[in-house]
Amino acid sequence: MTEQQKPSLEVCLSPALLHLYDVKNCIVVIIDVLRATSTICTVLYNGATKVIPVSSVAECVNIGKQLGAITAGERDGRIAEGLLHGNSPFEYPREFIQDQTLVLTTTNGTKLLHMAKDAIQIVTGSFPNISAVCDYLVAQKQPVILGCAAWKDRVNMEDTLFAGAVVSRIREHFSVNCDSAIMAESAYNAAKGDLYGVMTQASHFKRLANYGLENDIRYCLTPDGANVLPIFNNGELVIG
Amino acid sequence: MTEQQKPSLEVCLSPALLHLYDVKNCIVVIIDVLRATSTICTVLYNGATKVIPVSSVAECVNIGKQLGAITAGERDGRIAEGLLHGNSPFEYPREFIQDQTLVLTTTNGTKLLHMAKDAIQIVTGSFPNISAVCDYLVAQKQPVILGCAAWKDRVNMEDTLFAGAVVSRIREHFSVNCDSAIMAESAYNAAKGDLYGVMTQASHFKRLANYGLENDIRYCLTPDGANVLPIFNNGELVIG
Repeated sequence: MTEQQKPSLEVCLSPALLHLYDVKNCIVVIIDVLRATSTICTVLYNGATKVIPVSSVAECVNIGKQLGAITAGERDGRIAEGLLHGNSPFEYPREFIQDQTLVLTTTNGTKLLHMAKDAIQIVTGSFPNISAVCDYLVAQKQPVILGCAAWKDRVNMEDTLFAGAVVSRIREHFSVNCDSAIMAESAYNAAKGDLYGVMTQASHFKRLANYGLENDIRYCLTPDGANVLPIFNNGELVIG
Repeated sequence: MTEQQKPSLEVCLSPALLHLYDVKNCIVVIIDVLRATSTICTVLYNGATKVIPVSSVAECVNIGKQLGAITAGERDGRIAEGLLHGNSPFEYPREFIQDQTLVLTTTNGTKLLHMAKDAIQIVTGSFPNISAVCDYLVAQKQPVILGCAAWKDRVNMEDTLFAGAVVSRIREHFSVNCDSAIMAESAYNAAKGDLYGVMTQASHFKRLANYGLENDIRYCLTPDGANVLPIFNNGELVIG
């Protein structure tokens, strides 16, 4: 394929910039490394039937009741009132989550997911499923937007680094004419020898480390611990 | 000074993200490397009395007439209709611009300047005046936002790299708790051995190179060619 024939690969660093991208003609990868999209692939990898992402705690409670599902979500680092579980991937081992439905409310990731609803396809990505994401994107041969969920619209390090890791792995199959993608790749290349060490400088690391979540962070930065592809269809994430 | 006592240093990668920052308690550096803020410091360094940045071509023409000033600005890479000069720093040698007023219309840079109007102080920065900018910021001991003008709100490489260069030079005097700042510095450190080479991958490089402006780009990426500090006061940029 010539460079012109390759599909485009772009990175959007914040939901507040997504309107600048042509979402409806692209596959969008939702990236919320700490910890929503890491937990989503883990839950599905461990045998959950599906994950239903919702915006509000109230919606989470209601849908959970209707479906007899497990409800989860945090606000400001604690399990939200009315819900029973949090955002940590370690809360969802196979013996707990297999054959269950998880209704998950997150702020940044769910917001971006709904903003991207007109995309050709929406999938979720994080280091624990990076190979599944990359294999899928290469196979589809469609334009791709790597959409960072960020933190209350502020660009964050962990989502940018994951986007950069994906660019670095699959760029030969795509036309990369996006400065954010090139810089994300450069940031990843600079950090890849010690992702955890680099992340200790990040604002989100400091927030989570205050809650003693260093093990969560290490897991969320480690490739292929839960290597399945969550695909969004009719309001549900299931293995693609 | 302890880390807590140091003023903050943040990077805003796009005007579309500026609402997330506390502009009114900060000094804001407007960064539009290719080429508005490179040309602004050059024009002042070469003896212009002042530069008046305006949003529209019509405003540029009107103010130019009122003041008997030189009018300049481009749209889509060409001198805008009704104006006489463009955005290239090489159009403004001392023998032409000394003791003159320049009225300059640019899209990205002027937009950001008006958005930042409540800041403690607004200055403009680019590689040709990087030392003047850094010396000023260190001396002021105030919180700083490095504001990238970007390209139609899309994050761009050249403004991010300049922000990263500033972070790299002055970070010891500031508290840097901003992922964008850390990543901009990392991108700059990766690129600094060959800024021009790295920039040949950038989207804006491709746009400008089509107009034969490689020399402009080289100049705009070279430190201290016009090392003065443009400060914005009452709608005018003058040497601080």
